[in-house]
Amino acid sequence: MDGITQHNTYRNDTGTAVPTIRIFKGDILHTPTPDAFEVVEDGFIIVDNGTVRRITSALPSEYANLPVADCNGSLIIPGFNDLHIHAPQYPMAGLGFDYELLPWLERYTFPAEANFADPEITQRWYKRFLNKLWSVGTLRFSAFATLHAGSTLELMRLSQRSGLRPVIGKVNMDRNAPESLIESTDDSLAATQKLIEKSRELTPDIGFIITPRFVPSTTPELMQGLGALVERYDLPVQSHLDENFGEIDWVRELHPDIPSYAEVYEHYGLMPEGRTIMAHCVHTSERERALLKARHVYLAHCAQSNMNLTSGIMPVRRNLDYGLTISIASDVGAGHVPDINHHIVQSIEASKMLSMLPEHQGERPLLLPEAFYMATKAGGSFFGRVGSFEPGYDFDALVIREDDNPLGLSPQERLERYIYAGDDRSITHRFVAGREIPLPFPDIA
Amino acid sequence: MDGITQHNTYRNDTGTAVPTIRIFKGDILHTPTPDAFEVVEDGFIIVDNGTVRRITSALPSEYANLPVADCNGSLIIPGFNDLHIHAPQYPMAGLGFDYELLPWLERYTFPAEANFADPEITQRWYKRFLNKLWSVGTLRFSAFATLHAGSTLELMRLSQRSGLRPVIGKVNMDRNAPESLIESTDDSLAATQKLIEKSRELTPDIGFIITPRFVPSTTPELMQGLGALVERYDLPVQSHLDENFGEIDWVRELHPDIPSYAEVYEHYGLMPEGRTIMAHCVHTSERERALLKARHVYLAHCAQSNMNLTSGIMPVRRNLDYGLTISIASDVGAGHVPDINHHIVQSIEASKMLSMLPEHQGERPLLLPEAFYMATKAGGSFFGRVGSFEPGYDFDALVIREDDNPLGLSPQERLERYIYAGDDRSITHRFVAGREIPLPFPDIA
Repeated sequence: MDGITQHNTYRNDTGTAVPTIRIFKGDILHTPTPDAFEVVEDGFIIVDNGTVRRITSALPSEYANLPVADCNGSLIIPGFNDLHIHAPQYPMAGLGFDYELLPWLERYTFPAEANFADPEITQRWYKRFLNKLWSVGTLRFSAFATLHAGSTLELMRLSQRSGLRPVIGKVNMDRNAPESLIESTDDSLAATQKLIEKSRELTPDIGFIITPRFVPSTTPELMQGLGALVERYDLPVQSHLDENFGEIDWVRELHPDIPSYAEVYEHYGLMPEGRTIMAHCVHTSERERALLKARHVYLAHCAQSNMNLTSGIMPVRRNLDYGLTISIASDVGAGHVPDINHHIVQSIEASKMLSMLPEHQGERPLLLPEAFYMATKAGGSFFGRVGSFEPGYDFDALVIREDDNPLGLSPQERLERYIYAGDDRSITHRFVAGREIPLPFPDIA
Repeated sequence: MDGITQHNTYRNDTGTAVPTIRIFKGDILHTPTPDAFEVVEDGFIIVDNGTVRRITSALPSEYANLPVADCNGSLIIPGFNDLHIHAPQYPMAGLGFDYELLPWLERYTFPAEANFADPEITQRWYKRFLNKLWSVGTLRFSAFATLHAGSTLELMRLSQRSGLRPVIGKVNMDRNAPESLIESTDDSLAATQKLIEKSRELTPDIGFIITPRFVPSTTPELMQGLGALVERYDLPVQSHLDENFGEIDWVRELHPDIPSYAEVYEHYGLMPEGRTIMAHCVHTSERERALLKARHVYLAHCAQSNMNLTSGIMPVRRNLDYGLTISIASDVGAGHVPDINHHIVQSIEASKMLSMLPEHQGERPLLLPEAFYMATKAGGSFFGRVGSFEPGYDFDALVIREDDNPLGLSPQERLERYIYAGDDRSITHRFVAGREIPLPFPDIA
């Protein structure tokens, strides 16, 4: 695999400088559609200025004189995208799952988030967090930070340095929160606006995303104000929706005049079309599903979290058949690991469990290429042309070095084994938009 | 952690030689009962000739002059026990889960097992298998080999060399199997008997376990003959029971005169009291549960496998309340990884899923100490006094080195994080009956 970091510019016949071309060789797999893997064994990906030009099984003569980054014997797959993760909860991921949701929040989540008022904790843990996402191959993600504007900006700066390409939001909450994690409506809005402007200047590659924690922790005034920011700065939105029944009842009590939970977000301008992520959506009503579809909302399916907190299982097959866009997300810290390959498996398992219930009988469980598509192209499309190796897509890629393959497995079987039984140790290289990304913070354990 | 491999014999006041004593210091956790972890932070385990003498938070003066293996900052927990694993399926663990059970068996499982007619594959893959179990901390286990007697004996010899302490069975199958994996009744019985005697001579620390694959693949004559071997050699038995409805119907068709699947095993002398392991038990009837209880059968709960193959979920809470003995098992290759910490999590998750169904409403999901107990003491008791640090128990232990603990977590929280989010990289030392076990086959990748 020598030469994999070679760069090169060449001149064409007419002597004109052409953009940087890079060629990668290996067993290429991706999912342009959810039905099946497209596999090119021992093929080439031609990347032009960070963008995929084409995949080919034989190198055209025009590229014959260019050096090739040879990943022979390795798989080349799109990077993973995680549309729902709580960065400050990473330190306590895996703790407290014998508790119910509310004591879990009080005992683990809220104290963990309150810690990020401290700049030293911010530095240490956000660096660890970014190292960890890098290690497991999550190259783009949408993260909740905390309500602390300074700490959130620091996460954006560290992300800018890392080479990973997330969108990040300062959490807003001005009601129903512990004293250590609440802000006034005005402060919340002012700090958010300032952060939007500052981050545009300081972290040009890291998007800002408007992040009301969820309806119960944001007053109508705050939601209204955030909706105005969405409009003014043309921003995306992320929040939680329909995670469990207690939460849904609570929203109904808080907003008796609005017919459904999802419509509260819509009412306050927090559901911009094609730019909204809603996590969980375990118990959505028909009415809500119609709205989510009309607004082209990205559903973030968090199967592991929903098992850990006994929330339920999203009816993924029904939602897909209905035409909703579903990505796979870790929801760390309610999910215990950020590894998207594990979440692909857990989504399939959850779907199989659901298919055994009488009311879901006959629903086909998720197949591997479908779940892989959700974790790559479906989630990636939130960021643009990301998550596939079709022409024009950003070259976001992982190089996976499996075993020495004594069993003579096909590329798809090797991918399957990595997804089910592999971990970060199998990932040897990571590329974002054509650029190889080294471990972001090697000084941090 | 220097000194952890020190041995030593000392003389007491009267000058009499006393047995070898070893003292381990660290954060000790185990589950003498399923209700709660017993935790001795910064405590001592005194081990006498491989057996736990006591745990103490302060070292008694009689031991004051002995060196202590200081695992300060690490957790010391009992080793994991896995009561159901298919050794020859390890190479294809993680493959084929988009298929239903029957095509999965035909495409992956049976060819994988047929490979073990080859001595080279036997050597290579059984060494890898043992290395892998060592790495994840599975110190004792009950394995299905294949029907090949030579290859099975080799697995026993390699196990003897490894220092791990499994019981192993040659699979018997003389009906309803592919041509590459079937034997005549007489050959099956003769080979099994020969293997029992040979292994007693050659592998004194590795138990032999009678292993009819499952009722549909063993004729009444074979089961009868195996029952006679159980009696004659006083052997334990392992098999499969009530994994899915198709299998249960099939058994009913094959044995219409016997009222239930479990009773077929009993009828043929294949349910020796306190020495029988039955894997899965997802769909047991009341009648069967009574029999399993009366015979003190070890149920091997394979939650991951049961999700992968869409088999269902064992009603663990009900079975525990009823008084059944349940251990946690990987069922590799229908489970995709052998890591028992992951199977602990998956058992808890499965139990939470079940608790959300109307017919299981009000059933408390498994708590972490209960699942840990199942994976240590419940499974370990099949092997004797194993799986706990109570006095008289074998010192089977794992030393777990977690993070540098900047969050000030309690020992139980650190254990919880290892179980949910850790892997083999956290295990620094492994002991079986007091003896430290190095990587069994370091020459194998």
